[in-house]
Amino acid sequence: MFSADRCSAVLAAIRERSPLVHNITNYVVMNNTANALLALGAAPAMVHAPEEVEEFVALSQALVVNIGTLSTPWIVSMERAASVAAARGTPWVLDPVGAGATALRTNTAVALAHLRPACIRGNASEILVLAGATTEKTRGVDSTRSSADALAPARELAGTTGAIVAVTGPVDYVTDGRQCVGLGNGHPLMARVTGLGCTATALVGAALAVEPDRFIAVAAGLSFLAIAGEIAAEKSPGPGSLQLHLLDALHQLDAATIARRLKIVG
Amino acid sequence: MFSADRCSAVLAAIRERSPLVHNITNYVVMNNTANALLALGAAPAMVHAPEEVEEFVALSQALVVNIGTLSTPWIVSMERAASVAAARGTPWVLDPVGAGATALRTNTAVALAHLRPACIRGNASEILVLAGATTEKTRGVDSTRSSADALAPARELAGTTGAIVAVTGPVDYVTDGRQCVGLGNGHPLMARVTGLGCTATALVGAALAVEPDRFIAVAAGLSFLAIAGEIAAEKSPGPGSLQLHLLDALHQLDAATIARRLKIVG
Amino acid sequence: MFSADRCSAVLAAIRERSPLVHNITNYVVMNNTANALLALGAAPAMVHAPEEVEEFVALSQALVVNIGTLSTPWIVSMERAASVAAARGTPWVLDPVGAGATALRTNTAVALAHLRPACIRGNASEILVLAGATTEKTRGVDSTRSSADALAPARELAGTTGAIVAVTGPVDYVTDGRQCVGLGNGHPLMARVTGLGCTATALVGAALAVEPDRFIAVAAGLSFLAIAGEIAAEKSPGPGSLQLHLLDALHQLDAATIARRLKIVG
Repeated sequence: MFSADRCSAVLAAIRERSPLVHNITNYVVMNNTANALLALGAAPAMVHAPEEVEEFVALSQALVVNIGTLSTPWIVSMERAASVAAARGTPWVLDPVGAGATALRTNTAVALAHLRPACIRGNASEILVLAGATTEKTRGVDSTRSSADALAPARELAGTTGAIVAVTGPVDYVTDGRQCVGLGNGHPLMARVTGLGCTATALVGAALAVEPDRFIAVAAGLSFLAIAGEIAAEKSPGPGSLQLHLLDALHQLDAATIARRLKIVG
Repeated sequence: MFSADRCSAVLAAIRERSPLVHNITNYVVMNNTANALLALGAAPAMVHAPEEVEEFVALSQALVVNIGTLSTPWIVSMERAASVAAARGTPWVLDPVGAGATALRTNTAVALAHLRPACIRGNASEILVLAGATTEKTRGVDSTRSSADALAPARELAGTTGAIVAVTGPVDYVTDGRQCVGLGNGHPLMARVTGLGCTATALVGAALAVEPDRFIAVAAGLSFLAIAGEIAAEKSPGPGSLQLHLLDALHQLDAATIARRLKIVG
Repeated sequence: MFSADRCSAVLAAIRERSPLVHNITNYVVMNNTANALLALGAAPAMVHAPEEVEEFVALSQALVVNIGTLSTPWIVSMERAASVAAARGTPWVLDPVGAGATALRTNTAVALAHLRPACIRGNASEILVLAGATTEKTRGVDSTRSSADALAPARELAGTTGAIVAVTGPVDYVTDGRQCVGLGNGHPLMARVTGLGCTATALVGAALAVEPDRFIAVAAGLSFLAIAGEIAAEKSPGPGSLQLHLLDALHQLDAATIARRLKIVG
């Protein structure tokens, strides 16, 4: 069962071991993602050349693949890195940004989802598309559907891929196909900062690097961001301040804060 | 005629409709641009693969093309996306970063300028180069000339391309080839933050997405940034603080602030 | 001899001449690097297309080459730009990010190191690898060794390449193969912000653009960042705040602050 204690134990392990998290992610969020991983206590690296991704995966404790600013040469690297990670038993996380918006995105996300990710984290629209539960066009990279709508398809997707599936939104849901947990932390202002979903995915990568129970790891990674974002938003007049306070809050996050804040909603 | 009321009406329409703004822009400013669009109330997406730009333009209410960190594969996508946008009647904006510095930049900017952009926004040096009014080498991405120097060439460029042309600097000028407006907001410290010109271009994209009068839309987009930047700079000891306060000020921008601050200088 | 006076003279020259610094650097740090150069008083540009790098080097007063998010097409541009800079006598700086982590990184860094850089700036692991003093795998982009360990190999590398070699860490060492200076400014929280090493390299580029004594220039460039980072960290509860205050501190840096803060440790 996910709990504040389990969540804090994952945080302590990240700080203790400082896992190397290999990211193949989009240009928009590379800087923020690296900073969020550092603030939490992990060691990020952004490496995407097809000539070196296999070698780099072998050095890493987790891999994050995010299709945000997709292009054909990067797809080669993503598939190569994911395959090596799966073969080595290194946990890897898929962020299917914009699946459903274009054929390139949908096809790439579907292909990657079948390379045994430890976790798939998306918004409701993206998860519905990956689960084959809709063929409607999504609107850019934003969800047009609520997280709850995607819950049954998320369970199914977990079943067919073997991944823990996380659907994020005002409430975040995590499922392995059987058990499910809802997480109620966060703040509406977080939606006015670009790439916080991508950051959540990266923090899930750090959690998977140290926690063998994947369900617990995914819930913990999402909770780190949602709690820090909530703390940051409460003191922010706008999204510029939120970004700054978010990194400070991740750096200062501790077991007492998690115990006081964590909102498990079923 | 451009006025505080017209400017505020554009802002209200952006907040109301949250237009999807498709950006093919440079690596340096992707994150800031996305955050500025979100802070204003628009929905940004950064998508550049030649295989998907046409499909993505069709989902979008405006397109922004910025040649900052140019390379050959991106030029293909820029031309393809701009052509589709023009054909569909989707407004698109050109930011000819560094035109005049190298042959690649000048040639690319000139070719794009003839694909019927709704607006071309540049500094004085870039607009002079595009108008064919100079062949002197510009110094990197900074202007070596004043906005006023570029005013006559800007009118001419508007005439030959059909675009609204904006020349930004201490005073921003907007012209459709006949009418012209000067905008006096802003602050010198803004020049110490990278890519605020690129951000202005992106906000013009958001304005064009909702306002059919292109002259008003361009003036409004520039004013949003100049007013928010001025507010931010007044409370900033340096450019780090300015960036944070700028996003907060865009988020908090409202009709009363526009009415109080907007400086139309002729 | 390096001193606070020599350091301040370099700063004054940067502010006076605003040198154009051409960067071929990684996606993660492009925005921060540009902002740090602007805050200091230099004029940054990020330009990487093989078709234009030679032309752009010719406009610039210094070149910075950073292999952070390496890929084959960028290696072509890096080698071409570095060769032109060396041939023209334009100083260029190499940042061998992650040398030792993969064969691609090590081979690229070694090849670039032989194109007559004015300076090579790396962490201890990277410098040991370039000096041929170790074949152990480094852990991603972080150093697994202390700066002092790399001092003798750094002297040797300076001898074989003709570059000033800087090894950064808790203490930064600068050597031309004979003389050596240790610099003790900085703060542990700086390691929780991504890419501050890359930023140091870029500021060294700005210093080399204006100061013909390369040993002094490199020590000055590193000192600007270490002093500003130290000032920023002292007022920061976490790494988000540090980033903001760092840019403000670079903007506000002056001779009095350098005289009061600079810590030469031997």
